[in-house]
Amino acid sequence: MGNVHSFEDIGKKIGRDEVYVAAIFYGQAKPSKEELEKLSAVLNLPESHLKEELGESYYPDRGGLISTVPTDPLLYRLYEIIQVFGYPLKAIIHEKFGDGIMSAIDFSAKVEKVENPKGDRVKITLDGKFLPYNKW
Amino acid sequence: MGNVHSFEDIGKKIGRDEVYVAAIFYGQAKPSKEELEKLSAVLNLPESHLKEELGESYYPDRGGLISTVPTDPLLYRLYEIIQVFGYPLKAIIHEKFGDGIMSAIDFSAKVEKVENPKGDRVKITLDGKFLPYNKW
Amino acid sequence: MGNVHSFEDIGKKIGRDEVYVAAIFYGQAKPSKEELEKLSAVLNLPESHLKEELGESYYPDRGGLISTVPTDPLLYRLYEIIQVFGYPLKAIIHEKFGDGIMSAIDFSAKVEKVENPKGDRVKITLDGKFLPYNKW
Amino acid sequence: MGNVHSFEDIGKKIGRDEVYVAAIFYGQAKPSKEELEKLSAVLNLPESHLKEELGESYYPDRGGLISTVPTDPLLYRLYEIIQVFGYPLKAIIHEKFGDGIMSAIDFSAKVEKVENPKGDRVKITLDGKFLPYNKW
Amino acid sequence: MGNVHSFEDIGKKIGRDEVYVAAIFYGQAKPSKEELEKLSAVLNLPESHLKEELGESYYPDRGGLISTVPTDPLLYRLYEIIQVFGYPLKAIIHEKFGDGIMSAIDFSAKVEKVENPKGDRVKITLDGKFLPYNKW
Amino acid sequence: MGNVHSFEDIGKKIGRDEVYVAAIFYGQAKPSKEELEKLSAVLNLPESHLKEELGESYYPDRGGLISTVPTDPLLYRLYEIIQVFGYPLKAIIHEKFGDGIMSAIDFSAKVEKVENPKGDRVKITLDGKFLPYNKW
Amino acid sequence: MGNVHSFEDIGKKIGRDEVYVAAIFYGQAKPSKEELEKLSAVLNLPESHLKEELGESYYPDRGGLISTVPTDPLLYRLYEIIQVFGYPLKAIIHEKFGDGIMSAIDFSAKVEKVENPKGDRVKITLDGKFLPYNKW
Amino acid sequence: MGNVHSFEDIGKKIGRDEVYVAAIFYGQAKPSKEELEKLSAVLNLPESHLKEELGESYYPDRGGLISTVPTDPLLYRLYEIIQVFGYPLKAIIHEKFGDGIMSAIDFSAKVEKVENPKGDRVKITLDGKFLPYNKW
Amino acid sequence: MGNVHSFEDIGKKIGRDEVYVAAIFYGQAKPSKEELEKLSAVLNLPESHLKEELGESYYPDRGGLISTVPTDPLLYRLYEIIQVFGYPLKAIIHEKFGDGIMSAIDFSAKVEKVENPKGDRVKITLDGKFLPYNKW
Amino acid sequence: MGNVHSFEDIGKKIGRDEVYVAAIFYGQAKPSKEELEKLSAVLNLPESHLKEELGESYYPDRGGLISTVPTDPLLYRLYEIIQVFGYPLKAIIHEKFGDGIMSAIDFSAKVEKVENPKGDRVKITLDGKFLPYNKW
Repeated sequence: MGNVHSFEDIGKKIGRDEVYVAAIFYGQAKPSKEELEKLSAVLNLPESHLKEELGESYYPDRGGLISTVPTDPLLYRLYEIIQVFGYPLKAIIHEKFGDGIMSAIDFSAKVEKVENPKGDRVKITLDGKFLPYNKW
Repeated sequence: MGNVHSFEDIGKKIGRDEVYVAAIFYGQAKPSKEELEKLSAVLNLPESHLKEELGESYYPDRGGLISTVPTDPLLYRLYEIIQVFGYPLKAIIHEKFGDGIMSAIDFSAKVEKVENPKGDRVKITLDGKFLPYNKW
Repeated sequence: MGNVHSFEDIGKKIGRDEVYVAAIFYGQAKPSKEELEKLSAVLNLPESHLKEELGESYYPDRGGLISTVPTDPLLYRLYEIIQVFGYPLKAIIHEKFGDGIMSAIDFSAKVEKVENPKGDRVKITLDGKFLPYNKW
Repeated sequence: MGNVHSFEDIGKKIGRDEVYVAAIFYGQAKPSKEELEKLSAVLNLPESHLKEELGESYYPDRGGLISTVPTDPLLYRLYEIIQVFGYPLKAIIHEKFGDGIMSAIDFSAKVEKVENPKGDRVKITLDGKFLPYNKW
Repeated sequence: MGNVHSFEDIGKKIGRDEVYVAAIFYGQAKPSKEELEKLSAVLNLPESHLKEELGESYYPDRGGLISTVPTDPLLYRLYEIIQVFGYPLKAIIHEKFGDGIMSAIDFSAKVEKVENPKGDRVKITLDGKFLPYNKW
Repeated sequence: MGNVHSFEDIGKKIGRDEVYVAAIFYGQAKPSKEELEKLSAVLNLPESHLKEELGESYYPDRGGLISTVPTDPLLYRLYEIIQVFGYPLKAIIHEKFGDGIMSAIDFSAKVEKVENPKGDRVKITLDGKFLPYNKW
Repeated sequence: MGNVHSFEDIGKKIGRDEVYVAAIFYGQAKPSKEELEKLSAVLNLPESHLKEELGESYYPDRGGLISTVPTDPLLYRLYEIIQVFGYPLKAIIHEKFGDGIMSAIDFSAKVEKVENPKGDRVKITLDGKFLPYNKW
Repeated sequence: MGNVHSFEDIGKKIGRDEVYVAAIFYGQAKPSKEELEKLSAVLNLPESHLKEELGESYYPDRGGLISTVPTDPLLYRLYEIIQVFGYPLKAIIHEKFGDGIMSAIDFSAKVEKVENPKGDRVKITLDGKFLPYNKW
Repeated sequence: MGNVHSFEDIGKKIGRDEVYVAAIFYGQAKPSKEELEKLSAVLNLPESHLKEELGESYYPDRGGLISTVPTDPLLYRLYEIIQVFGYPLKAIIHEKFGDGIMSAIDFSAKVEKVENPKGDRVKITLDGKFLPYNKW
Repeated sequence: MGNVHSFEDIGKKIGRDEVYVAAIFYGQAKPSKEELEKLSAVLNLPESHLKEELGESYYPDRGGLISTVPTDPLLYRLYEIIQVFGYPLKAIIHEKFGDGIMSAIDFSAKVEKVENPKGDRVKITLDGKFLPYNKW
């Protein structure tokens, strides 16, 4: 499939970000009815087939593709960023927002290529709603 | 210390990003001689004391503050993003850059607060050099 | 301390639920300035002392008191409920709410004693905001 | 199956709570003879077929569907509640009941949707018999 | 202490089984007020001292003395019995009692020495209430 | 099979305890030639078939059916007994027998149902030879 | 395959080091279009077949062939070298290069046989770009 | 100490490679009597003091400084090399030497800095005796 | 196979120790060309078949048959011997040989049955070359 | 201590094997009253002191000195022997003795140095009673 349709292509055609589209293909996001219709058109697959697999009653069992510590070097670097910069990030988020977290649900992730004569750079933007801790 | 100097304050005074400053305090970055001098001025600590602890021959033993899977909810959300969106991010990076990784060494991380009437948002930008795999 | 002040007592005096109060004492919740003032009055401790430890710049490093699988039988039963009834609960939440999660941040927990001639019953109510997954 | 029969529907038809019904389908509860008869009627499946699989001599090997720390975000939030609020809940249960545990066997779990203009809320009620520790 | 008072001695004097007495000393059982009074008499320790440590508001944090798989050979043999005979025991309990478990809370354990010319035998009796699974 | 022959029935017919019989079926005990002959008669299976699978050169690879910490609640309670009462049992065995262990090889396990108006009780008897540590 | 083509042979024919060639076969390196063409010639396999499996959109999911601690003695020795000499190597790299790492991406590995009357020696050369830590 | 004596300096003075010297300081190598004498001279420490700690009856308990998977990025890259290139290295060693391993005991490791206009390179040479598997 | 040929028989016929023969069958030793020829004769299997599977380019991926801590009681006892007597053995080996290890490669293992009126004894002899640590 | 008394010396003086003596010092064996008396004489330590620590009521909590997989190379080689030769040893023990295990309790271990012009050899003899599995 990758040969024919890049995630970027599919994303443009169904009006979603490429990371989100990849998340559907890795079973990490639930496509809406509209998205399934568009996907069936783009991929030239019967809509009924997609809906059977990924339809209304399908709710992804997220995670689980990666072992506790990922071994793939690209994925490990993301894990290493948490190991090394996790507490610094936590400290700054608390400093800016107070007690709470960045949501990983009301969340989006983007990847950009930033050209640079010393070597292009990968820019990943994580954008999540701040959720303050409740008191009761 | 936090009461007196925020990481943001210190960062402004020594000319470094707040996340990077926090990384020094968590033992995850090696301060340069110049940074130590500035830190000693900002924190009103004897330079000799800082240099003894964090001087030329000090090289951080990075990571290890966090258990394999972090338990703090703020840190866990970062881990969850890898569990859920790790492979989608990998797929898009390969699509855009080819075979290689985002460096976690030639790397920076920033935190921004994006005000939003539905709830402010945390924006984390990860920016690392793309390193293509070598062939030999 | 427990001999003198039950969490229930403290909760009533500072206007917070007993579970929330216990969470402060176990380092799992960040007390507000007002809560610290009330706690210092209730516990007859100098406010300055509490604020130094638990004041503005204190943000709990949550979790970590319990090993990956808890060994204490009371705590293990809570873990077992996830092992046994986790997927059924997930299925019903999705059936009722669609794709998303119950927040553990915009969240409260209560414990009630329900008297019963066959043996009193523990009733734990977990109440968290439903967070629908974002699309982008 | 989910498309046709929701757990809520099946539960109403066989006179059991939807969480309990889901537990049967996930192999976490043993259906009684009467429940099997009703299920065969509701699902339009031959009774003999169900009894062969789930009949008298079938005793579920419970748990094991979830890795030690669940990766699915909905399930992880339940785990996080134990990590963060486990000891506070233990303290309050002991304060109210003395030395013992909440049973996970003489137990029920319910899910309710509580509508709320700021966002609907998931309410999970865990109800287990208090079991005092024996002395001998 | 062991030199002076065996658990058997203490048990006889306070009217409890020796295993239960040892459980108090290993922090795995909560002594009642009466037991503390008797223990203070037997051990010739000030009652106030014992009550401060083990009094009303003390609830043991059970387990945790043993790593996940015990290394001490005596303890490992108990673990091995579960590895080897766990499923056979489960099958027979279900055959005799139906769907449920043996309680480890409404529970007692005894150790007896059975003399035998071919080598004395250790007889451990585990006695727990059968708890049938609830339906709801 | 369970529908037709209970382990109790088979045990009576081949002159072995039901727990031992279940151990054969779970691949945790090596049946003797005589036991295989009796089993083939009881189960109405060709003797040659059983002997091919379970014959002279078959030696069980014991354990391994259960994860390190069992998740099934019935099996977990047995594990919990070791976590909570393991050291007390060790202490009492040493007090009664000196330095050594209870064998899990020269060993038997029995399950009895003890009727009780407050709820029937499961009685498990573990009976193993005491093995004193060698000196050399 | 090994019988017919050694990695050394293939490497010579496609102009790559034998370790790199083996990495392709173990799914740990992405072959370029040119390499695939040469491989198809050397192995006498249809180019279309190789490209379907290992073509443009194929990006290896690296690692994962080895358990966390390798059990094969040859592989374990490599792991042991990190356990025993890891910190000494880190110290010397920092002494020579300052704060940073040896890249495992801009990297090559070679194996040489060094004949020696006391027993031939394996010489492994690891050659990676030094990456200094970024400041920001 | 690092400020005053680099491992390179000490190595030159006592006639040993710097990696080996660092291994002594990390408790991963046993210094000989002659090495202790030289070390005491170089470090200006009383020989008796060093010999008490590191003398004849001292045998290092090697390893254990690093968790199963190292978290420090420099050390992790070494681990990653095994994860990614472990099997390729094994294949080539077998191709060149037959069945056996590279010794990690009759072994040395060196670090060199190779200057390069595109970025200096770290060259690590691992040199171990080939040990063929015994037959008996 | 075991019914027909014991490892002892095969060993006698091909001139190798029975433990070594078993190691071949468990994929833990590489048979030589001569051994394959003899095995094909003894087992009455076509030589070509054996050579295809176990021939020149076959190098065992050793270990991995046993989980980190073995569960089979016979295998666990070997593991327990390391847990209990590992450091004593290390101490004595260093006392007798100095700094180094017993090779597990230039190694053999034998099993003998020593008849004894109090119960026959298993005698396992491990015989490995002493490898002194290198200095460099 | 090691400087003054080798385990071999102490063993000769108290009439025990050196491995057994080391086991006492590592807290892995319980010394008898007579052994304590002899040890106090040999080590020139007050008998009362030794008996307080290691006297009648002392029962070692065996194991636990070594992590699950040992990192020290000498200890790891013993572990590797189980990983590689564990099943072959099990097969031969069953072939020679039938169904059962080698005891690690009624057990002794010896270390011998076997001189050899190609390199001295370590010979470890493990000698344990065969324990046949019980039937009941």
